Amino acid sequence: MIAPAGDDARWMAAAVAIGERGRGVTAPNPAVGCVIVRDGCVIGRGWTQPGGRPHAEAVALAQAGSVADATVFVTLEPCAHDSARGPACADLLVAAGPARVVVALVDPDERTAGRGIARLREAGIVVYVGCGAAGATASLAGFLMRQRAGRPHVTLKLATSLDGRIALADGSSRWITGDRSRAHAHLERARCDMILVGGGTLRIDAPRLDVRIDGLADRSPRRAVLTRGAVPAGWERVAAPEAVAGLDGVDSLLVEGGAGAAAAFLRAGLVDRLLLYRAPILIGDGQAALGDIGLGALDDAHGRWRLAGARMLGSDRLEVYERA
Amino acid sequence: MIAPAGDDARWMAAAVAIGERGRGVTAPNPAVGCVIVRDGCVIGRGWTQPGGRPHAEAVALAQAGSVADATVFVTLEPCAHDSARGPACADLLVAAGPARVVVALVDPDERTAGRGIARLREAGIVVYVGCGAAGATASLAGFLMRQRAGRPHVTLKLATSLDGRIALADGSSRWITGDRSRAHAHLERARCDMILVGGGTLRIDAPRLDVRIDGLADRSPRRAVLTRGAVPAGWERVAAPEAVAGLDGVDSLLVEGGAGAAAAFLRAGLVDRLLLYRAPILIGDGQAALGDIGLGALDDAHGRWRLAGARMLGSDRLEVYERA
Ligand SMILES: NC(=O)c1ccc[n+]([C@@H]2O[C@H](COP(=O)([O-])OP(=O)(O)OC[C@H]3O[C@@H](n4cnc5c(N)ncnc54)[C@H](OP(=O)(O)O)[C@@H]3O)[C@@H](O)[C@H]2O)c1
Ligand SMILES: NC(=O)c1ccc[n+]([C@@H]2O[C@H](COP(=O)([O-])OP(=O)(O)OC[C@H]3O[C@@H](n4cnc5c(N)ncnc54)[C@H](OP(=O)(O)O)[C@@H]3O)[C@@H](O)[C@H]2O)c1
Repeated sequence: MIAPAGDDARWMAAAVAIGERGRGVTAPNPAVGCVIVRDGCVIGRGWTQPGGRPHAEAVALAQAGSVADATVFVTLEPCAHDSARGPACADLLVAAGPARVVVALVDPDERTAGRGIARLREAGIVVYVGCGAAGATASLAGFLMRQRAGRPHVTLKLATSLDGRIALADGSSRWITGDRSRAHAHLERARCDMILVGGGTLRIDAPRLDVRIDGLADRSPRRAVLTRGAVPAGWERVAAPEAVAGLDGVDSLLVEGGAGAAAAFLRAGLVDRLLLYRAPILIGDGQAALGDIGLGALDDAHGRWRLAGARMLGSDRLEVYERA
Repeated sequence: MIAPAGDDARWMAAAVAIGERGRGVTAPNPAVGCVIVRDGCVIGRGWTQPGGRPHAEAVALAQAGSVADATVFVTLEPCAHDSARGPACADLLVAAGPARVVVALVDPDERTAGRGIARLREAGIVVYVGCGAAGATASLAGFLMRQRAGRPHVTLKLATSLDGRIALADGSSRWITGDRSRAHAHLERARCDMILVGGGTLRIDAPRLDVRIDGLADRSPRRAVLTRGAVPAGWERVAAPEAVAGLDGVDSLLVEGGAGAAAAFLRAGLVDRLLLYRAPILIGDGQAALGDIGLGALDDAHGRWRLAGARMLGSDRLEVYERA
């Protein structure tokens, strides 16, 4: 029996959620998720493994064994190109022979770009494309940005008071936001390929930028400094915001401040997503969240950001904005 | 038939809503609301009239005619003191003889302070106290603050970008927030007794501070400037934040900035409520919302404000905080 199309969106949401497990450890490969369903039961699940192989589909197929009459849900089109590290997923699927494959997004990688889907259809497998595309697009944002624009997807994190301060005048910033905000920010760290701060923050705060969540400490990403100077051991140097395009294996970048570095990325038009953690406090005189972002007139500021999500984290509020 | 107690909260909410009609035009009298209910139908409604008389109960009783078997809902204890401008509401109610009176709040005014309720009970009327107290407390905040602390209830309004700016570096601040936020802010103006800005804002923006909403233009409140200097015609002078205690007929004050005036009121501990309108824009370098509020350490900033309400106004977000 073919899984009823009415449940497709829910199964694809499950595939997206499972794909998230690979976030931050698969670049330059996408962190894909795959769920195989027969008679309303999951018979196989897989996600891109650390380093990018095996692919999600290969893991899920191995788990499922026979996939006759089953539907395969996968967040990105199965790849059509062989690699020294494994066969093409489209070929694996053709060999396995499920009844149906549901794909969220066509792979923009020119080695696949529709060819994976074509190969499945040629083999007589029913293929649906576009189900759950929004969720998959968010989940694969880094890979998609790298494919389409040749640079990482950049998230700017700001943790501020209600009046937009990131530190007191004397520099103290521990703590503005609460435990739950900080834990959430550490999860965001675990999901990116690299974290960056400005030279000022490195000198003043000497932050560790690691993931301090039990069980996820090994997910601490690479660390970089935006600086015109030299960098200490253990840090990579980024000489200008535009230079992030050249960072191998960095498809998603988290910029954690301070005001100078944040403004430099905004000025360069290189911020795709804002993570704003706001504590219910007032600071008054203190350090602003942003330096000069190159805004000429107030009119130009409008229409650039779209609220993509919001939640309370204890008494703090997290808002996520995306480029409009 | 006596109205069932299960509906009391809803009727009291109606009384609070009706009382709101007097907001901003009754000081130093409270803007009370009154609803009289029999057999589940409203037979009389009243709110404190401009200038403070007639009182809400007198208006509602006149409208109802006979109140036998009816319940009277009133947001504040009926007054127990005669005045040259009219009889005590407690006496009016005793003469009218409803079955029951439901009161949200005991009147802190020492001329009444429980005596109104006692007089009703002595006359054999059933009196319930405390129903809808939270709503009535918010609605009568100005009157209550004046009674309890001898000063107006102060709301600070800030209209900022996501990064807490109230103007670009060159001073331009038209517009940060959108139409709907500005209309909401004009409604807030209509509900207070006086609006105040700092000397800087007066000199730079020369704001009108009137209520630009059709039908409410006559609700434009008195205008004041916080300044050590002289003030132009049409403006009242406030020499220091503490001086607002001495303003006759001002029980609710709206402080609209700028950064210096806002900080002065916060430093003096005189802000009871924050109205934060935030537009989904980034400004970067620009004018901060607040100057020095006298914060010594970050720990001292926490626990002072409690989120009391929030809503979207178009793409802006309004958050209301109250002193914790
Ligand atoms: N609450 C929070 O969320 C938070 C987060 C982070 C930081 N902070 C606070 O922010 C403060 C530091 O902020 P900050 O603005 O002084 O420093 P910053 O943004 O961390 O660093 C500024 C530095 O970045 C480098 N830089 C900036 N633009 C550049 C460009 N276009 N190309 C190359 N390099 C560029 C320069 O480094 P070089 O001088 O090395 O060349 C510059 O001095 C600290 O007090 C820290 O506590 C708060
Ligand atoms: N977006 C918004 O919501 C918004 C709202 C309002 C204003 N703004 C902007 O804010 C800017 C003005 O801000 P600002 O900080 O320069 O000026 P401000 O706060 O409007 O005024 C500061 C002045 O207030 C008086 N003052 C302050 N503390 C005092 C105290 N303790 N006792 C007596 N007087 C005191 C002094 O007036 P004297 O010098 O006269 O003695 C002082 O110069 C303008 O650019 C305006 O556009 C924006």
